[in-house]
Amino acid sequence: MTNNEDMLYEERVDGEVRFEGKIINVFTDRVRLANGKIDYREVIRKNGGVCVVPVTEEGEIVFVNQYRYAYGKVVREVPAGKMEKDEDPLLCGLRELSEETGYTAKNVVPLGVFYPSPGIMDEVLYMYYATDLTLGETHPDEDEFVTVERIPFEKAVDMVLGGEIVDGKTQTAILKAWLLKQKGVL
Amino acid sequence: MTNNEDMLYEERVDGEVRFEGKIINVFTDRVRLANGKIDYREVIRKNGGVCVVPVTEEGEIVFVNQYRYAYGKVVREVPAGKMEKDEDPLLCGLRELSEETGYTAKNVVPLGVFYPSPGIMDEVLYMYYATDLTLGETHPDEDEFVTVERIPFEKAVDMVLGGEIVDGKTQTAILKAWLLKQKGVL
Repeated sequence: MTNNEDMLYEERVDGEVRFEGKIINVFTDRVRLANGKIDYREVIRKNGGVCVVPVTEEGEIVFVNQYRYAYGKVVREVPAGKMEKDEDPLLCGLRELSEETGYTAKNVVPLGVFYPSPGIMDEVLYMYYATDLTLGETHPDEDEFVTVERIPFEKAVDMVLGGEIVDGKTQTAILKAWLLKQKGVL
Repeated sequence: MTNNEDMLYEERVDGEVRFEGKIINVFTDRVRLANGKIDYREVIRKNGGVCVVPVTEEGEIVFVNQYRYAYGKVVREVPAGKMEKDEDPLLCGLRELSEETGYTAKNVVPLGVFYPSPGIMDEVLYMYYATDLTLGETHPDEDEFVTVERIPFEKAVDMVLGGEIVDGKTQTAILKAWLLKQKGVL
């Protein structure tokens, strides 16, 4: 351990592409540490993501329940999705909201960014808070199966605190929106 | 979209190992969707993780600043690490806390779990709140470079709300601990 910030830097020496997928690419790089030693890094690179906390006029958060194959179970999350290359995060968020829930939003406020797993992945996920919702038709991605659920905001906060909502971005975005509302910022 | 929960299930048809690393393994699987169609999933499998929100007697949270190669910059996070296979998450958290900051904790309370990126990865990360800290010697992993920083709890919450703290698990764990303290649960 050191207290010198410069001593933290890691310089890439060389590396290899190990997997090129539709969603992720995986690299193994050799890096030179501050002490001159060579170390090894596994890095997942992927496009950024977006999530939206949509709140209805009745004060309910709109969730989607979706089968998450990696966990082998249904996970309750706020609407979210991957950005296409060079897609604007706000437009991506509105698109995913509409596709997954049928809602469009007239008022959208950024809630900052979220690094899902900084030790291994470069993804930046943008969070938004959306109100003035109008329910139109759903336009799901072909072969995307989700169920929509509305939960009162305060109950959703209690579900995060009580461990019933486990998705990371969903926990952060809901608690952040709740505290910003308490402070009168939202 | 459907409103039938059973319609969300995806059945594995077959798959391939595409990358076997020290930290992650990557698979591509074919799955059968609820509508009978075949789709494709990229899945990252890794051991679980742990993070700890350590709070000193003076009411400061102990952070570590660490170079995150995937982002090419230093990221401020609460102490965290990967579980060894079959390692107890609580013991892992205490080990990482001690290795990265030198603190040992006499009182540790679970803050629930955190799914970093459920669309692509199976990691479960356990969060803890730790008090009754004693500063001993640091026992860093060989070649692990971090700097330690203490920030008053309320200021740290404001830094999360203001976007100065971007790591996902750190945002969730701090806001969760803050709200649980407000409720008198912690």
